[in-house]
Amino acid sequence: MAENALIVGVGRGLSASLARLFAREKIAVALAARNVGKLDALAKETGARTYECDASDAASVAKLYERVDKDFGGGLDIVVYNASGRARGPITELDPAAVQQAIMVTCYGGFLVAQQAARRMLKRGQGTILLTGASASVKGYPQSSSFAMGKFGLRGLAQSMARELAPQNVHVAHFVIDGGIRQGPDDPRGDRGTDALLSPDAIAETYLSIHRQNRTAWTWEVELRPWVEKF
Amino acid sequence: MAENALIVGVGRGLSASLARLFAREKIAVALAARNVGKLDALAKETGARTYECDASDAASVAKLYERVDKDFGGGLDIVVYNASGRARGPITELDPAAVQQAIMVTCYGGFLVAQQAARRMLKRGQGTILLTGASASVKGYPQSSSFAMGKFGLRGLAQSMARELAPQNVHVAHFVIDGGIRQGPDDPRGDRGTDALLSPDAIAETYLSIHRQNRTAWTWEVELRPWVEKF
Amino acid sequence: MAENALIVGVGRGLSASLARLFAREKIAVALAARNVGKLDALAKETGARTYECDASDAASVAKLYERVDKDFGGGLDIVVYNASGRARGPITELDPAAVQQAIMVTCYGGFLVAQQAARRMLKRGQGTILLTGASASVKGYPQSSSFAMGKFGLRGLAQSMARELAPQNVHVAHFVIDGGIRQGPDDPRGDRGTDALLSPDAIAETYLSIHRQNRTAWTWEVELRPWVEKF
Amino acid sequence: MAENALIVGVGRGLSASLARLFAREKIAVALAARNVGKLDALAKETGARTYECDASDAASVAKLYERVDKDFGGGLDIVVYNASGRARGPITELDPAAVQQAIMVTCYGGFLVAQQAARRMLKRGQGTILLTGASASVKGYPQSSSFAMGKFGLRGLAQSMARELAPQNVHVAHFVIDGGIRQGPDDPRGDRGTDALLSPDAIAETYLSIHRQNRTAWTWEVELRPWVEKF
Repeated sequence: MAENALIVGVGRGLSASLARLFAREKIAVALAARNVGKLDALAKETGARTYECDASDAASVAKLYERVDKDFGGGLDIVVYNASGRARGPITELDPAAVQQAIMVTCYGGFLVAQQAARRMLKRGQGTILLTGASASVKGYPQSSSFAMGKFGLRGLAQSMARELAPQNVHVAHFVIDGGIRQGPDDPRGDRGTDALLSPDAIAETYLSIHRQNRTAWTWEVELRPWVEKF
Repeated sequence: MAENALIVGVGRGLSASLARLFAREKIAVALAARNVGKLDALAKETGARTYECDASDAASVAKLYERVDKDFGGGLDIVVYNASGRARGPITELDPAAVQQAIMVTCYGGFLVAQQAARRMLKRGQGTILLTGASASVKGYPQSSSFAMGKFGLRGLAQSMARELAPQNVHVAHFVIDGGIRQGPDDPRGDRGTDALLSPDAIAETYLSIHRQNRTAWTWEVELRPWVEKF
Repeated sequence: MAENALIVGVGRGLSASLARLFAREKIAVALAARNVGKLDALAKETGARTYECDASDAASVAKLYERVDKDFGGGLDIVVYNASGRARGPITELDPAAVQQAIMVTCYGGFLVAQQAARRMLKRGQGTILLTGASASVKGYPQSSSFAMGKFGLRGLAQSMARELAPQNVHVAHFVIDGGIRQGPDDPRGDRGTDALLSPDAIAETYLSIHRQNRTAWTWEVELRPWVEKF
Repeated sequence: MAENALIVGVGRGLSASLARLFAREKIAVALAARNVGKLDALAKETGARTYECDASDAASVAKLYERVDKDFGGGLDIVVYNASGRARGPITELDPAAVQQAIMVTCYGGFLVAQQAARRMLKRGQGTILLTGASASVKGYPQSSSFAMGKFGLRGLAQSMARELAPQNVHVAHFVIDGGIRQGPDDPRGDRGTDALLSPDAIAETYLSIHRQNRTAWTWEVELRPWVEKF
């Protein structure tokens, strides 16, 4: 039977690679982002439907799922949360409103999207929820407190949901992306030599392999980093 | 020279024990809570000043510090963040507004209070910021996603701030309180026998010992649990 | 080009599943164990060569590799270490000699096998070393001190080697197998219902997917557990 | 009542500081090391008794405890394990015999010493066992595989013993010493400025405070690092 996937927080290299891989694997794709205009090319290329959504707003997320329910009658097999935000700088200089917004997008938005996914997947008795973290999910870096709060918090959500939902046959997994993701073939940040940035296509392959794991051997967390990345 | 301490989130056993211990050690104490009325007895007993504050509101926290600045001219040596909130239940049944509020109090409030503390301590070139976590800071339990998000997030804040501020002589430490804290001598929850709940006086002793550590041997995280607690 | 794999510590369900999967994928297999007799059926089924080896003995491991070098001229692409030992019981009652032997097999043997693998793979400029851990790799259980020492130690080896060898294009990964592995279709331990034991075939699939990861997105550690396993 | 302490692995700054602190606190001290000659000055200064012991040899450790039993009739209240060994270099160049010896001293020796301590403490119904780790206990560094195996293994022992013995009123704690320990007032390694090395006196204070924790709020692990140490 054909599968359906929802990807929230599109616009980065990873979501595009996921959409392309899912399309190749005959998985129908829904793409949601705040700015739906920038999804046009990708939607055209992959046959995906697009949805405007502010992931940090409960009503907007509820509305997103209503529309997806209508468009993908068969239910969602995979939901991916890729959105995040951050305020950079020394702790003393951060604007509280910007920090709050960063936590809302990175962590609370993950909750809103995963909660709606869980409701649907528990009803069907199956499904996979994939949450995208970063190095900051497991290490609080200096001058990065807002990102640390958001990403640690998202990881807490992932672990709590994994423990709660696994015995109900819903697979929740968290990914620690430790390094920069290549943004297109001309990404100039390759200063440490070939392959110093994560290929988003390679990440997408691992996401799919986690979705396809046999339930007797599920993984709840995967770290991914380029071979030359210090850790 | 006499020291000053600010404790935010009073009302639980721990904050009261800290206030009493600080008073015995000649550390002047400021107590801040949403409901200042319940602080009266403790303030009378310990000579502490009390302040009304909504820790999840940036303006309220800024105002708190302005008042404390005026009342404690010599600056703050210790700031403790004890406030937290949670929404209980299966992920699918949680009210998004309650979850958001829990994250705001547990994690974002810690940021607001610690940010103001950091500004003052960096100016003076010293100080200690102590953030209170729980088992949920390091383990995401089922049906506890809101608490996991808040407490994981607070731990991320603590680690980021510890790395950022330690080389500037400000000591940030995080406490994983793994077990129930005894609420008074008649607390009925001692169902696992004597000493099965954490004594808040004992926790307070460890908080003070961390504040007094020599800076060549600082601890950033301490787990505390009763001898009989499973972990 | 055809690949070669060496599996050390054969006899459990996992090694047999790996041998079968590798055979299906046209990867030539060498099987090493202390008791080579029990490998006959598997060797026949998969076309694998078998080698007698005491993994905790440096000379025996060196000899194993000499023989494998001769038999598999093209070099080793994958080396898996699955051997382990333990002494059970309260810390006070353990026989020191049995504890020492457990550490030697579980941890030091992993070093001996991985060191020889690293020498060969660094010369060829590529390769994958896969080390099998357990729940005890990340959590020290009561009455399980010998297994905790061996498995924690093996994980330390894996992490050190991963950091050292990744930039030289050798992929080292560690697996935390959190649960019982099914030993054949009639394994009677399924007392928690269907799928309560890890399928060794499913584990083997994940091992192979880690070997095949693109080097811009390598994983150094994977936890695997049945959907119904508490963690 | 007067307390007794046994410190195994003397010779470094930490053990000397512990001996001096214990002496000031009226805790009688036994010092054990492979080379007992170098303990003379410290023994004279602190009034400690000295014992020759190879901590990686079961018979030698058993003999040590027999002698200590005779000399300190009242039983042991504190046992500290400070011994460690390592073989440095790239994984491919390490001498297997040196690696084995490093694991034996760092990890297996800790087991032997802690096992004998546990037997005595369980009989008396109380006691504290303190195991000294390093940065390498929680992070496997490149070219440091032997130290990673030994120190990860010792941490596994500590965690297993903490879980097993805490409910029997024996407190096991593990210390992650993250940085260089100052070896005397003239230690030349202070290249990062004042206080860049851990003061062994400061570490000793924390060890003692852990021993004195109320059992309703025990810590099983403490990280200690200089304020300027990166982590």
